Amino acid sequence: MPVSAEQRSEIEQTRNETTPTRRATVPALEEILYEPLPVLDHGFVRVIDYMGDDNAVVQAARVSYGKGTKKVSEDAGLIKYLMRHWHSTPFEMCEIKFHVKLPIFVARQWIRHRTANVNEYSARYSIMDKEFYLPQRDQMAVQSTQNRQGRGQTLSDKESDRVMQLLKQDSERVYDHYQEMLNEDEKGNVIDVNREGFARELARMNLTLNYYTQWYWKVDLHNLMNFLRLRADAHAQYEIRVYADAMIDVLSRWCPHTFAAFNEYRMGGAQISTTGLTIVQRMLKGEKVTQADSGLGKREWNELMDDLGLENLKA
Amino acid sequence: MPVSAEQRSEIEQTRNETTPTRRATVPALEEILYEPLPVLDHGFVRVIDYMGDDNAVVQAARVSYGKGTKKVSEDAGLIKYLMRHWHSTPFEMCEIKFHVKLPIFVARQWIRHRTANVNEYSARYSIMDKEFYLPQRDQMAVQSTQNRQGRGQTLSDKESDRVMQLLKQDSERVYDHYQEMLNEDEKGNVIDVNREGFARELARMNLTLNYYTQWYWKVDLHNLMNFLRLRADAHAQYEIRVYADAMIDVLSRWCPHTFAAFNEYRMGGAQISTTGLTIVQRMLKGEKVTQADSGLGKREWNELMDDLGLENLKA
Amino acid sequence: MPVSAEQRSEIEQTRNETTPTRRATVPALEEILYEPLPVLDHGFVRVIDYMGDDNAVVQAARVSYGKGTKKVSEDAGLIKYLMRHWHSTPFEMCEIKFHVKLPIFVARQWIRHRTANVNEYSARYSIMDKEFYLPQRDQMAVQSTQNRQGRGQTLSDKESDRVMQLLKQDSERVYDHYQEMLNEDEKGNVIDVNREGFARELARMNLTLNYYTQWYWKVDLHNLMNFLRLRADAHAQYEIRVYADAMIDVLSRWCPHTFAAFNEYRMGGAQISTTGLTIVQRMLKGEKVTQADSGLGKREWNELMDDLGLENLKA
Amino acid sequence: MPVSAEQRSEIEQTRNETTPTRRATVPALEEILYEPLPVLDHGFVRVIDYMGDDNAVVQAARVSYGKGTKKVSEDAGLIKYLMRHWHSTPFEMCEIKFHVKLPIFVARQWIRHRTANVNEYSARYSIMDKEFYLPQRDQMAVQSTQNRQGRGQTLSDKESDRVMQLLKQDSERVYDHYQEMLNEDEKGNVIDVNREGFARELARMNLTLNYYTQWYWKVDLHNLMNFLRLRADAHAQYEIRVYADAMIDVLSRWCPHTFAAFNEYRMGGAQISTTGLTIVQRMLKGEKVTQADSGLGKREWNELMDDLGLENLKA
Repeated sequence: MPVSAEQRSEIEQTRNETTPTRRATVPALEEILYEPLPVLDHGFVRVIDYMGDDNAVVQAARVSYGKGTKKVSEDAGLIKYLMRHWHSTPFEMCEIKFHVKLPIFVARQWIRHRTANVNEYSARYSIMDKEFYLPQRDQMAVQSTQNRQGRGQTLSDKESDRVMQLLKQDSERVYDHYQEMLNEDEKGNVIDVNREGFARELARMNLTLNYYTQWYWKVDLHNLMNFLRLRADAHAQYEIRVYADAMIDVLSRWCPHTFAAFNEYRMGGAQISTTGLTIVQRMLKGEKVTQADSGLGKREWNELMDDLGLENLKA
Repeated sequence: MPVSAEQRSEIEQTRNETTPTRRATVPALEEILYEPLPVLDHGFVRVIDYMGDDNAVVQAARVSYGKGTKKVSEDAGLIKYLMRHWHSTPFEMCEIKFHVKLPIFVARQWIRHRTANVNEYSARYSIMDKEFYLPQRDQMAVQSTQNRQGRGQTLSDKESDRVMQLLKQDSERVYDHYQEMLNEDEKGNVIDVNREGFARELARMNLTLNYYTQWYWKVDLHNLMNFLRLRADAHAQYEIRVYADAMIDVLSRWCPHTFAAFNEYRMGGAQISTTGLTIVQRMLKGEKVTQADSGLGKREWNELMDDLGLENLKA
Repeated sequence: MPVSAEQRSEIEQTRNETTPTRRATVPALEEILYEPLPVLDHGFVRVIDYMGDDNAVVQAARVSYGKGTKKVSEDAGLIKYLMRHWHSTPFEMCEIKFHVKLPIFVARQWIRHRTANVNEYSARYSIMDKEFYLPQRDQMAVQSTQNRQGRGQTLSDKESDRVMQLLKQDSERVYDHYQEMLNEDEKGNVIDVNREGFARELARMNLTLNYYTQWYWKVDLHNLMNFLRLRADAHAQYEIRVYADAMIDVLSRWCPHTFAAFNEYRMGGAQISTTGLTIVQRMLKGEKVTQADSGLGKREWNELMDDLGLENLKA
Repeated sequence: MPVSAEQRSEIEQTRNETTPTRRATVPALEEILYEPLPVLDHGFVRVIDYMGDDNAVVQAARVSYGKGTKKVSEDAGLIKYLMRHWHSTPFEMCEIKFHVKLPIFVARQWIRHRTANVNEYSARYSIMDKEFYLPQRDQMAVQSTQNRQGRGQTLSDKESDRVMQLLKQDSERVYDHYQEMLNEDEKGNVIDVNREGFARELARMNLTLNYYTQWYWKVDLHNLMNFLRLRADAHAQYEIRVYADAMIDVLSRWCPHTFAAFNEYRMGGAQISTTGLTIVQRMLKGEKVTQADSGLGKREWNELMDDLGLENLKA
């Protein structure tokens, strides 16, 4: 369970307070505000705050004095237009803030998205919780032979057992030693008054990369979609993809028109190269095109055939 | 008057709607939400939306599950500590969005602050209003002889009259010609059906830099303070400083503890150089220090004496 | 002619000096280093400095100790792979610095690309040159009726004459008055010792937006391509597109493999939406699809038919 | 030793090639180009490329056509002026690229500086080297009691022995298990052909945070100084401070005038608060001020007395 009873109670207390505001509010998002949406074995995503909604995109695009909105269909059309033509600045006018609990190796990928604000739990200052990620069996896979940075089929049971045992034992042991070095328990109480405690900023280096950290992460709607497009993609590592998936659900509550345009122009569809487009045009004219005379390498040709629903033509 | 009756009514309508929210709200800021705060002869600053408050800074610094706040005095102390030690990330957790109407030459300085989001009224797409900035008499000054990029004492009445006449006539004339080229009035109605209209994206080039433009400008609290520190400074051009001053009032309503710390550690006080600090130390030991043996040039020495309240020692 | 004899001589002097370096150098770019490449009537683009080349992209992608390059074909293949899969960080490892002279209304569009460094000529500090942009006849066009932010067919000769006359007269007049207010000529000499001079930071507001400014603009290769993709696009305003075109020539000299990949995956080709892809798939299966049963609006359908080379099916 | 014989030879080969360039070059920096400057037990900083020098700062500030430099003393004066008045943009015109090898827990602090470009060695794609950080004895310290995120006095020998033993054993063990899971040795050779190998992107999570990673890190001169000011500060963790120190030496070779101004206005000296400045002014007028009547808390008072060289007045 990702949150303790005490944390649960803090969350409930915060959820119970409402105040009136003149600002744009989104009931569907308010519903889940502060709620931890569980991800992986101990992680979560919580929406802590937000600013703006679909209308704010429209309002900024029109630089208006009031709400700036017209008929719902016109507003939705404008949002689609902005997305299709890569007019990104109106989407930057909405902002959202998450509290995320995630394994350190996931955090290291995540932080590469620089156009966001971050406050991370400090292991120089505080003691890390004893919480580490262990993959589920169906996620324990071999190195991919096709994609040099991905994973392939699932491990055999025997291999899987062994890997699980190693991960678990090492995670447990490094934490025990972390505590011994600190001479402090998880609450910060001294364990042995006759011993000194090693500095927290140093002891933390003994933890493995599957330990959970947490941060506040704030981003605008445009950059959130950039993040989601890359991290909800099939090529992203599973452990970050599940966070992106949870946040896509949040997006669908927060800005449903933007969410629809995002699906239409960013997540689905295809980016066709100059050469690829020529191939499509030739095919549409009825010409038979093969990889050999396409001008594309095998891998790119196959990706294109996948996009075109012509799996039977793959080389 | 910076807003029309129609705009006034749109604003009022927006102000009259309130909805309950679970988010942090700031009553003192809600009070002026959407209200145009007048700046210069036709400009304004309006707060359109905001996210977070003083507590959000504290909450992020503590990466907490609930409000994350403790006693008011402890929270204020933490905010002061963060400001003093340049821990900027917790201040990035608050966001504010303004609608600003400002002369183009001011907009060109303002936009140099890149860590903000902007949607500007498009003169490719729309017709510019006939509104231009004319300085008040007490702001019509000669080129400074001391500061090569500032202004000095006020112009004589005669010069001032002449400058005002030139500014006014040229502003009027370029707009008349702008309309003639467009063959459209301010509402976009065709003036003469027998003539063609020059493209808006081209005709706009005939306007002078004192014409007003408008934009939505969104920024986080940390970068807002960076902007204010530089633009509310005595060296900033008057025409942008008055916008910064209006926004400092907004800051005092929005985040009073942060505002206090900002005054204590950013706006007042002094940045003393390595050499300057040695001089202060020598003086405090009772030594008589003159510019000649200070290691500082005359200008820097005088600035230091000003900071130290020792105007009588200026060189 | 965009540069004076004195400036020409400064440029030549700089071009004549070479020193040996251990850094990556690009002879084809060195050839035009510091040279003003003319754009519009008085503008230019000059490459002032650069860092890295195609190999630097490869080297960073491989995090290598030496050059990190392999066979040319493998390196070119890697660059194509990175571009196709939106791996942007290796392209951020190259940097280029331009000196650009451009009309202020173009500068105002350009500056919206925030991920770049800028130093602009200061009209608070210095006197602006008397140089303003006048469009060529074939660029003097009416407002587009199809694209609300573009231009349509060329003006009639009569209208064109009149617009040109207005632009020219107003540009001349505002500069004359600018000088009168300053009481200084272009070199900064006092015109009339019995008069005061209005501060430069104020007098500049009397200039029109077609006046030329200049800046140093420095950007990494990834963000340069973002700029070029948007600004060399057919929807961009002509007056900024010609700058982008000049910089694309620079790119082809600087990083030819990256340039090829940029053409293949960014400039040409097409981004097909989710619905659009379904249409293509249906057509490739031999189905007849019309706009009416396509799920696309008329405008989007027509754009898709253009992409597919099926102009005859446009609605 | 931070680099292998093979890497050493790659570096030498790169160092041995020079080509002529028209760009600004800095002989003192060329001297150490590509050379690994050792940091910690296995880390290094290597300068891989650079663009610009002190003159480029001056040239950009003056937006000049040629070198833009005047007398050395005037240029140095201008650089000091720009630094003193926080005119940051001219310093953004220089760029430097480093190859850095550093422990992961240091990398996690470092990456928080977002205004830089990064390409990190990918443990999804490649196998991590068996290299981990172990602190030297004089750096093995207890948790600080004064500064909640720092370290205090050195551990006793007995504690130190024990901590070292734990760190070493755990680091060794997690790597052995990492290899076992991968079923690959450091070169990527399969260890046991009868076993499957766990995906690299997953196996890496078993490594501890003291393992070394590497990256290419590119930054402009202004943001480099921001990094150095914070990370070479006495409050920064020792393990990142040593990297900052190495880079300060690089700065002194690259841009000596900027380096001097950086020392004068950023690294030394003091930032005095509004209240602090009043205290200094009172003291300079001969008044006796104590903490009690100063308006400052004890900690801030003591910091001020340290700055003023009045340690004897500390509370």
